[in-house]
Amino acid sequence: MLKGICILGLLVMTSVVNAADIEAGKAKAAVCAACHGANGISIIPDYPNLAGQKVRYLQMSIKAYRDGERKNAIMSPMAAGLTDADVANIAAYFSSLPAGG
Amino acid sequence: MLKGICILGLLVMTSVVNAADIEAGKAKAAVCAACHGANGISIIPDYPNLAGQKVRYLQMSIKAYRDGERKNAIMSPMAAGLTDADVANIAAYFSSLPAGG
Repeated sequence: MLKGICILGLLVMTSVVNAADIEAGKAKAAVCAACHGANGISIIPDYPNLAGQKVRYLQMSIKAYRDGERKNAIMSPMAAGLTDADVANIAAYFSSLPAGG
Repeated sequence: MLKGICILGLLVMTSVVNAADIEAGKAKAAVCAACHGANGISIIPDYPNLAGQKVRYLQMSIKAYRDGERKNAIMSPMAAGLTDADVANIAAYFSSLPAGG
C-alpha cells in the first residue's frame, strides 16, 4: 500500500515537472505577436506561422536560436534570455493554437 | 495600341515567369512525405508541419538548408540539388495545403 502511494506520488511529481504551463507561455509570448501574429498566424510573409506547430519542433527551434545554432538578427536576442521552462511553455502555447488561425 | 499590347505581353510573361507550379512542387515533394507527412502534417514530433505555412518562409528555409546557412543531417542533402524554381514550386505546394491537415 505504502509502495503504491509512493509510486503514485512519483508519477504525479513527474507529471507536474514535465507539464508545460500554457498560460505562462501565453504571457511570455506576448512579445512574439508583433511578427508571428496575435493568434500565431504571421502577418509577415518572411515569418512562419506558429499556431498548431509541433511542440517539440517549436522547442528545438527556440533553443537553436537561444544557443546560437540558428542565427537570426531578431530571433537570437529574443530567445537569449529564455529558460528551458520558458521555452517549454511558449512552445506549448503556440502548439495549442488552431493551425488555421 | 501596339504599346498597350507590348505592356500586356510583358505583364503576362512576368506573371508566367514568377508563377510557381504547385503540381510540379507536389511531384518534387514526394520525398518530403516520409518526415513531413503526405498532407504536410508531420507524423514525427521533431519535424515541423509544412501545410499552410507561409510560402516565403518555406522558400527561405529550404534555401537556407541548400546554401548551408542552416545545417541538418537530413535536410541539407535533401535540399542540396534543388533549383530556385524547384524551391518555389515545393514551397507553393506545401503552402497550398490546409494548415489543419
